Amino acid sequence: MTTQLLGTSFIGYSRGTGSDVCGHAIYPASGGKLEPAYIAATPDEVNVAVDLAGQAFPNYSTLPGTLRGAFLRAIADEIEKIADDIAVRGPQETGLPEARLRGETARTTGQLRMFAALVEEGSWVDARIELAQPDRQPLPKPDLRSMHRALGPVAVFCASNFPLAFSVAGGDTAAALAAGCPVVVIAHQSHPGVAELVGGAVIRAALATGMPEGVFSLLYGGGRSVGISVVQHPVIQAVGFTGSRGGGTALMAAAANREQPIPVYAEMSSVNPVVILPGALERGETALAEAFFGSLTLGVGQFCTNPGLVFMPEGKGFGFIERLRELVLAATPGTMLNATICQAYAETVEAVASTEGVQTIARATAGAGQGAPAVFSVSLRRFLEADLLRGEMFGPGTLIVRGSLEEIEAAIPELEGQLTATVHGTAEELAAHGSLVSALESRAGRLIFNGFPTGVEVCHSMVHGGPFPATSDGRSTSVGTMSIHRFTRAVAWQGFPDACLPAELQEGNPLGIRRMVDGQFV
Amino acid sequence: MTTQLLGTSFIGYSRGTGSDVCGHAIYPASGGKLEPAYIAATPDEVNVAVDLAGQAFPNYSTLPGTLRGAFLRAIADEIEKIADDIAVRGPQETGLPEARLRGETARTTGQLRMFAALVEEGSWVDARIELAQPDRQPLPKPDLRSMHRALGPVAVFCASNFPLAFSVAGGDTAAALAAGCPVVVIAHQSHPGVAELVGGAVIRAALATGMPEGVFSLLYGGGRSVGISVVQHPVIQAVGFTGSRGGGTALMAAAANREQPIPVYAEMSSVNPVVILPGALERGETALAEAFFGSLTLGVGQFCTNPGLVFMPEGKGFGFIERLRELVLAATPGTMLNATICQAYAETVEAVASTEGVQTIARATAGAGQGAPAVFSVSLRRFLEADLLRGEMFGPGTLIVRGSLEEIEAAIPELEGQLTATVHGTAEELAAHGSLVSALESRAGRLIFNGFPTGVEVCHSMVHGGPFPATSDGRSTSVGTMSIHRFTRAVAWQGFPDACLPAELQEGNPLGIRRMVDGQFV
Repeated sequence: MTTQLLGTSFIGYSRGTGSDVCGHAIYPASGGKLEPAYIAATPDEVNVAVDLAGQAFPNYSTLPGTLRGAFLRAIADEIEKIADDIAVRGPQETGLPEARLRGETARTTGQLRMFAALVEEGSWVDARIELAQPDRQPLPKPDLRSMHRALGPVAVFCASNFPLAFSVAGGDTAAALAAGCPVVVIAHQSHPGVAELVGGAVIRAALATGMPEGVFSLLYGGGRSVGISVVQHPVIQAVGFTGSRGGGTALMAAAANREQPIPVYAEMSSVNPVVILPGALERGETALAEAFFGSLTLGVGQFCTNPGLVFMPEGKGFGFIERLRELVLAATPGTMLNATICQAYAETVEAVASTEGVQTIARATAGAGQGAPAVFSVSLRRFLEADLLRGEMFGPGTLIVRGSLEEIEAAIPELEGQLTATVHGTAEELAAHGSLVSALESRAGRLIFNGFPTGVEVCHSMVHGGPFPATSDGRSTSVGTMSIHRFTRAVAWQGFPDACLPAELQEGNPLGIRRMVDGQFV
Repeated sequence: MTTQLLGTSFIGYSRGTGSDVCGHAIYPASGGKLEPAYIAATPDEVNVAVDLAGQAFPNYSTLPGTLRGAFLRAIADEIEKIADDIAVRGPQETGLPEARLRGETARTTGQLRMFAALVEEGSWVDARIELAQPDRQPLPKPDLRSMHRALGPVAVFCASNFPLAFSVAGGDTAAALAAGCPVVVIAHQSHPGVAELVGGAVIRAALATGMPEGVFSLLYGGGRSVGISVVQHPVIQAVGFTGSRGGGTALMAAAANREQPIPVYAEMSSVNPVVILPGALERGETALAEAFFGSLTLGVGQFCTNPGLVFMPEGKGFGFIERLRELVLAATPGTMLNATICQAYAETVEAVASTEGVQTIARATAGAGQGAPAVFSVSLRRFLEADLLRGEMFGPGTLIVRGSLEEIEAAIPELEGQLTATVHGTAEELAAHGSLVSALESRAGRLIFNGFPTGVEVCHSMVHGGPFPATSDGRSTSVGTMSIHRFTRAVAWQGFPDACLPAELQEGNPLGIRRMVDGQFV
């Protein structure tokens, strides 16, 4: 590593000065400590960071998109400069392989540049203009113009399972900074070193591009105390979070109980049901099992889109199950992200295994800190009776539920909200099961045909969201360009002189963006 | 009146059968009762109405936009057929003049037709297509398509101050029905007869256009018991409300405490600050006072956009104040909507008048059931000290706060969230006070220059929303075409065969709508 880690928060352009050690990074395989010790931000430092964000807001939020874009690109460049350090420190802290860290770094810089391009181009603000009609009867129509503006300073919580793409400069931060919102990030205790590396990159980019102090801060101190105090601070106007249902709902409660309630965008639990129709089995059960197993075990199953539930027609799919069994027994268990996740997975697997009516197809054995693939089977009737079986097994475990197609369709509305729902079959089968697809749509944000839910494309049309409890706000996506609108609100200007309007709304369209004028896009 | 009022709820295509009288409409001027007695929906009927809405959802939400548009147009037509009955019953129940009822009827039918045109045209769904790149390295890119879909059944609460435009078939209902959401309306006790008239019109339109039963129900029973039970019903997915802060925050709490929390769009209190700069006074204080008084007293001040707060430079504006004083003393007080609103206004005016440091400029005297214009003045320093003075006086009362321009600008961040903020002055002054405008923008959804906040244009660029407590969700608008997105969520389809996609996303673009394809609008 070429970067020296200090173990302190970034409070605007200063570093934290407290002395209260809140933890070390831990090697997940051995449980050993990594240096340095991490120091909690003091309550004063938390307030300074949030106040600086509030002070930066009026200036930062109204910078031209080209300048915000330059800042985002500079962050991507600075992250690339430390990619080797991330590739060293990341695997130590998370147990994830170097290749994953490098891939996630590329995804993160790609996201930053995607948002840079979005705000540099500028049409994302949805500018709408309605010209005055002073002679209209019975009343004159005023000149009215609206566009999206930044919501205010945003709190972003790092995710344990994405040390880069959903952490310090990940999707939430990129979307908020692109929208014009200063960001206060709360580091995750699982990868404080990667957080410090990326935090330093963001600060260097902010300084290099002349951003106002407070546009970014990074706080250590354990999610609960420091994190809740940030969410409760009156200056904060929205929250981004990816993590557990317990953590997400605690933030929802804290945000709802503020004097001014604010939106929380929490991405939480999802079991991502997969429905296998007979035609998919007829195409080849072995290949299907192998592809499914690849998705199930990717990243040791630690993705929110992991396929944790499979509906399969009764009396079919024995070849699929047999191949899965072979794959599980031949699998090399991987190291999980941290001891908490590892223990929760082991306990959930054990609870599922010992639930009445559940048959264990195969379980690999796991060493210390590891998560071993596990496949179970249960009848649809028992599945509906046992609440535990409809919950999330966060890790490489899945439950195959067998029933008639009619029973499967009737069971879908009993599922909680999901990020994804998948169907395997032929195009003819899909067309013939419209009401099944409709039921799945009512439960999920993304529907997949003959594919797998892992691998979330970062693009304009991605919806990575879904009804509660998949997310706290099923109207939103946390991936792709649409996610910028989590951190904006529309504002209208009535009767304003041209020179006092934002450039996006001025008569001459100086930015050359796509706008709606009197109902027509031009 | 040609329509016979029954006093019972509309439970899908049936009428309520309970016998528990929950109230009568009251003549606000006299306090006398209007027939018939209104019968509360029974708990069973509430459940039936919501369950029917849930059953109607899969079908109704996926109807072609042309069919939903036809339904909305049929509602408008049916309302026009009973415009004379509304013009008779409305003034009896609300104390509002017949011309206002006729004007509001026209606004309501106009809103319905605006949403019909929006969904008939179809581009509102924001269709996004990203084509597959099977050869992309390192991983193939899947075909991914997204669009907005209806959120689910919606609960809409009628507003006391808008018996038509924000009630049974008002903006919330029109937006939800346009989006594809069945609606369960909870009538307001202030105008149950107008609600029944309009409810009958909606039902006739639904039957005539072949809509599934449950697409609309209308419940009587007092906002609290029936309303809260609708909001708590698991089938309901969003809430629209216009009313008091107490009512709105109670619904927010009920929605947040559900097993599945749901969004609440509550439009609540706003004092709509008006900042008068010296140039506006120099243009003519008398004319400004007269125009301001017109806005203040429109509809007896019972608009959420009523200008209840004026900031004026110290030592100026004596002519403005003097003319206001004359106008108040010459005014004819109007009848207020109901006894609760009338009493609350009288009490608030009294409390403001007796606050230390407040000077009464003028107060008219009011008869029973009336609200009299009232104008007060206070120094900026006292204004900031007395919390009461920053609250809403719902009625034709306003408070003039005088200080230096620097003090005024510094006071803006102390204000709560507002629907609107207005500046009067010259274009040069506006340009010279950019930070004042920026401060106002941070507190409001709509900024007005040299105009008045009352008179909310129904169009594409309107933002009728604002930071809490102006609304529960400052990201939303309750007026204009953008308001449809309160009742939608984006859904993505990955790898779907063309024939199984919604028409909006099919390759051949059969609806001919504007779509984003690989990042470009076509």
